[in-house]
This record gives sequence, C-alpha cells and structure tokens, in this order.
Amino acid sequence: MPKLWTETIEAHRREVRDAVLDTTAALVAEQGLLSVTMSQIAEGAGIGRATLYKYFPDVETIVLAWHERQITNHLEHLAAVRDGVNDAGQRVRAVLEAYAHISRGIAEHGIRHHNPELAAFLHRDEHGQVTGARRELSGMIRDLLAEAAATGDVRDDIGADELANYCLHALSAAGALPSAAAVSRLVDVTLAGLRSSGGLR
Amino acid sequence: MPKLWTETIEAHRREVRDAVLDTTAALVAEQGLLSVTMSQIAEGAGIGRATLYKYFPDVETIVLAWHERQITNHLEHLAAVRDGVNDAGQRVRAVLEAYAHISRGIAEHGIRHHNPELAAFLHRDEHGQVTGARRELSGMIRDLLAEAAATGDVRDDIGADELANYCLHALSAAGALPSAAAVSRLVDVTLAGLRSSGGLR
Repeated sequence: MPKLWTETIEAHRREVRDAVLDTTAALVAEQGLLSVTMSQIAEGAGIGRATLYKYFPDVETIVLAWHERQITNHLEHLAAVRDGVNDAGQRVRAVLEAYAHISRGIAEHGIRHHNPELAAFLHRDEHGQVTGARRELSGMIRDLLAEAAATGDVRDDIGADELANYCLHALSAAGALPSAAAVSRLVDVTLAGLRSSGGLR
Repeated sequence: MPKLWTETIEAHRREVRDAVLDTTAALVAEQGLLSVTMSQIAEGAGIGRATLYKYFPDVETIVLAWHERQITNHLEHLAAVRDGVNDAGQRVRAVLEAYAHISRGIAEHGIRHHNPELAAFLHRDEHGQVTGARRELSGMIRDLLAEAAATGDVRDDIGADELANYCLHALSAAGALPSAAAVSRLVDVTLAGLRSSGGLR
C-alpha cells in the first residue's frame, strides 16, 4: 500500500474516534453515564453500530478513552505554555497559572460537574491512566522548579519534588474558587511559598 | 431520679459506645469492612448482641459513628492547640502544623490505609457529617488567619476565606510525605505563602 493511502486511513480513523468521544461526552453530560447506549453514540457520531463496535467494545471503554484524551490535551497545553516562556521564574508562574485554570475549569464546566456517577466511575480507574498522567505532571512541575531553583527564582533549601507536591495540592484549591481573579490570587500565594525561605516567625 | 444516678447511666452508656466504636475500628482494620458482623462486635466489646442492637442498628451506622468521633477528636485537638498559644502568628503556625500531622497520620496509619472498601464507603457519606466538619475546620482556620492579618502576621491583601482554602489544600499534600521532617518543611512553605505579598516576579 502506498504511504499516502495509509495516512488517509489513519486520519479517517482518528476523525471517527474523535467524533465518537465528543458525542459520548455530550450524551453523558446530558443524560448521565448509566443511560447512554452504544446505539445513541453511533447515531450521534454518524456511523453504524457495527462500525462503532470495531472501534470500542462498550460505553465504559469510550468514556475512559475520552478521559485519557482530556488528560493528554491538558498535558500538551501545559507543555506548550512551558515552551513559550524563556525565563525560568516566569515559566514557573505561567505553567502553574495554566494548571490552576485547568483545575478550576474541570470543577466548573467539566462533565463531572453534577455527574456523581461519572466521577465515581473515573475515580475507580485512578490507579491506571490518571496515576500515570499525574506522575507526568508532577515530573514536569518538578523539573521546572529545579531549573528555577538553579537560577535563584525558587528557594533551593527544599527539594523540587516536595515543592512540586506542595504546588499541585495548593493549586487544587482552584476547584472551589468563584472567579478567575481568585485563581490568580491563589497562584500568587502559592508562588510566594516557593520563594521565601522565611514563613511566619 | 437524682442527678447523680442519671449521670452514672450516661457515663456508662458513653463507655459502652466507645468500646463498640473501638472494637469496630479494630475489626475493620483487621479484616476489611464487608466481613465484620454485629456478633463479632458485641463479643469484642464484651456485651450481648441484644444490647448492641439497643445502641446501633447495623455495622455501617457504627462505622459512621466511629468516623464522626474521629473527626470530632481532631477538631477538639486543633482547638486545644489554638487555645494553648497566645501570639496570633505563632497560633497559625501551631494549628497548621497540627493539622498537617493529622492529615499525614490519617494517610499513613489510619484504618483507611489499604482499606479501599472503607474509603469508598466513607466517601459516599461525604455530603453529611464530613462536609459539616470541613466547614467547621475552614471556619476555624479562617478566623485564625483573620486575627493574624489584623496583627500583621499574615498578609491582608487577600481575604481570610481564600487563604484558608489555600492552606487546607496545600497541607493536604502532607498525606503523601515520608517523614515528620518533610511535613514541617511543607508547613514552612505554606506559611511563607501566607506572609509575603510578593511571589515570583
């Protein structure tokens, strides 16, 4: 088979897959996880049921694939933010700010919102892909902090691993915040912790 | 009935109740939530099954009562720490340090550890008593921070509510830490965020 032909097939498969994931996310958001059927998904994605089953065996597998795509997109977004800033200190701020806004977006507008079934279902899987993504995220933040410690932008009296753990937990507070301005204030406070080696008396 | 007699009965009931909760926690830690029976609990607490049923209708109710007692104990401990320190700034440090150690203790030695059934069961209840306790805890931290802001020990450019939200999330990072020394470093970093109004450039 000529290469172009293979690429066309690949691109077509990706498009179908994306349409299936988008349709499923919309259906779950509308009617909850438990009542969504493979037939509804096939209809919404504009393909036959038989074709859908060539891609995915059941609704749960599609939801996990959707979740994995979300996480991958978030990590790619953070990597793009990181690569867009030269200064080590500014880079830390930019990535942490982006991460805080993602955290708030998931809590506010994500399909998990008002969807306890879905939250419980994704929670059960947390030892799989989410743990891997979390490790990748921690690693990314740790490396940024180590770089910024080397340039004097971040305290170097505490290991970058521990500082990354602090940052990710502190910024998860963004989920409960009412406004983007409050998220920026949270990022400021979190960054202040990274800089000073003082703290309260 | 004379008052002393009523008090004696009350004290006896509290003792039985505490023995039931302690026994249940030990049994759940040993053999997991699902296999614990009312007979085992009665035997362990040194009372008859009929007596046990006068106190609690089932194992789930006992586990929730145990959990509520744990939370109450933690809140009382934090209030005692708070009331033992005069200086507003020192008080914030002492209470946050105590809270971080509690968070780590729950993750490390708590009966939730290696007990996913129990964690899932308690999680399901989180809209009840835990939410109330969390609100009480947030209120306590918020009041401490507001006092410390008034004395200049904590930044006053951001509301005490938002700072309390930041603190509780940041300190929940203690759950993953390997040592008490690492917990103290986390408290230092978190407190540094409360003081400076700078942050990274």
